[in-house]
Amino acid sequence: MCELLGMSANTPTDLCFSFTGLTQRGGNTGPHKDGWGVAFYEGKGVSSFHDSSPSCQSKIANMVQKHPIKSETAICHIRQANVGDVCLANTHPFIRELWGKNWVFAHNGQINNFVPRYDVNEAAFEPIGDTDSESIFCDMMNHLKQGLNRESSHQQIANCLVSFAQDYAQKGVFNCLLSNGDWLFTFCSTKLASITRRAPFGPACLTDADVSIDFSAETTANDVVSIIATQPLTLDEAWEVYDAGEWRLWQSGEVIARGMI
Amino acid sequence: MCELLGMSANTPTDLCFSFTGLTQRGGNTGPHKDGWGVAFYEGKGVSSFHDSSPSCQSKIANMVQKHPIKSETAICHIRQANVGDVCLANTHPFIRELWGKNWVFAHNGQINNFVPRYDVNEAAFEPIGDTDSESIFCDMMNHLKQGLNRESSHQQIANCLVSFAQDYAQKGVFNCLLSNGDWLFTFCSTKLASITRRAPFGPACLTDADVSIDFSAETTANDVVSIIATQPLTLDEAWEVYDAGEWRLWQSGEVIARGMI
Repeated sequence: MCELLGMSANTPTDLCFSFTGLTQRGGNTGPHKDGWGVAFYEGKGVSSFHDSSPSCQSKIANMVQKHPIKSETAICHIRQANVGDVCLANTHPFIRELWGKNWVFAHNGQINNFVPRYDVNEAAFEPIGDTDSESIFCDMMNHLKQGLNRESSHQQIANCLVSFAQDYAQKGVFNCLLSNGDWLFTFCSTKLASITRRAPFGPACLTDADVSIDFSAETTANDVVSIIATQPLTLDEAWEVYDAGEWRLWQSGEVIARGMI
Repeated sequence: MCELLGMSANTPTDLCFSFTGLTQRGGNTGPHKDGWGVAFYEGKGVSSFHDSSPSCQSKIANMVQKHPIKSETAICHIRQANVGDVCLANTHPFIRELWGKNWVFAHNGQINNFVPRYDVNEAAFEPIGDTDSESIFCDMMNHLKQGLNRESSHQQIANCLVSFAQDYAQKGVFNCLLSNGDWLFTFCSTKLASITRRAPFGPACLTDADVSIDFSAETTANDVVSIIATQPLTLDEAWEVYDAGEWRLWQSGEVIARGMI
C-alpha cells in the first residue's frame, strides 16, 4: 500500500518536519520504497516534486526536507506499488487542471479491476500511467466536470466527492486526499488520522526519526496548522483518528464540513 | 523577455551542464530573474521543478544543477516577466494532459492582448495563471484536441502546430518549445539556435559560467544529444541559428521534419 500526508494551514507553513518523518517510511522505517511525490500550493500555482526512487535515499526528497517551501495546502504520498510498475508516471500525487485551477490527488488503497464510468473518447481527463489510483482520479474529475461547474460551492463539490468515495469504498480500499487549492478533501476508508496545532504550541517528536521540534519557536499565536496522515507521525501528540467511512473537508487548518458515508 | 532551453537525445542524458549555464542568466549574467522551471520526461511521466525565485539563487535550481536527472526530452525556461505577476502560476513550462500524455510548453516572446480562439465554457483547457503564454498554450491544446485525435501522426500534429505558430507570430513574438514526450517541436519567431553533439565528442565551455566539460568522458559513441536555446550556451561550439519563421521537429536528438512558415 502507500502512505498519505496532507497539510491545511491558515498561513503559509513549511512541511519539513512531517515530510522528514514520512519519507523515512520510504525504505527505512517502512516498506514504501517505490517512489514518492509532493505538491505544494503557492497561490494558484503548484510546486511539485516526483521521484520513482525510494524517498529515504532520494536527493530530491533530501532537498525538500531541508528547503522550507511555505504553503497553505500540501499533499504528499509515498508508494508501495501494487497496481502498475515503479515509474514516474505512476507516482502520486496526480495533478490536472479544471476550471482554471490545479487539482491534486493522492490515494492509499487498491481497487482491483477498476472500471471508469466514462467513455474514454468523450472524457476530458484520462490517465497517463497505469495505476488504479490515477484512473479513479480521472473518473472523479470527469464526473465533476460533467455534473458541476466553476461556480459550484465547496458544499456541492464535497457532496459529489462523498458520493464518489462511497462508491469506490464499496469496491476496495479508498483513503484519499484531494485539493483544488481552496480546500482539502479527505476520506477514510480504512485509516486516516489528523492533528490540529494551534496556540499554545508545544514540542513534538517524530515517530520515524530522531527529530524533535518546538513549534512555539516556529509559529505565531494566530497560526492554525493541521496535518492529516494515514498513520500518526509524532510520538507525543494526540492524533484524532478518523472512523471508517468518515470524510472531513479542511480549509485554513480547520474542518469546515464533515460526515460519514 | 525570457530564455528557452530544450533537449532531445537518443539516450537518457542529464541536462546539468546546459542548465548550469542557463540559470546564470536568471539574475546573474542575465536579467531573467522572475522565476524558472524545467520539465524532464522519464517515460510517460514528467519530473518538473518550478520556482518563482531567481534561478541563480534558487536552492531548487542548485539541486537540479548537481543532480543528474536523465531524460531524452527536456524543456526549461527562465522568466523575465512582461505579462503577469511574478508567481508560481505564471512560471513556465506549462503542463497539461491530452490523450493520456503529458504536453509541456514554454514560450519566449510576447503577444499583447492575446484573445484565445475558443469559448471558455466549451474549452477542455484553460489557463491557471495570467500570462499570454499559458493562454496561447491552452489555445493550441484546445485546437489540437478539436482538430486531431490520439491516432494523429507527428506530421499531422506538426502541420497543425506550424499553422498555429504562423498565426501567433503575426501577432507578436513567438519562440516556443512544445513536447508530448514523443518529439520536441521548436519554432523560431525571432531567435533560436541548436547544436547537435555526436561522436567524436569534444570539450565545451559555458558562456555564462566558468565551467567546461569533456563530453567524450560522459557519452558513448552512439549518443546523439541536441540542445536548443534562445541564445547559444557555449563559447567554443558552432551553433546552428534558426531563421525567423523556421520550425524544426526533433526526435531522439535528430531533426525529423523542418520547414519555414
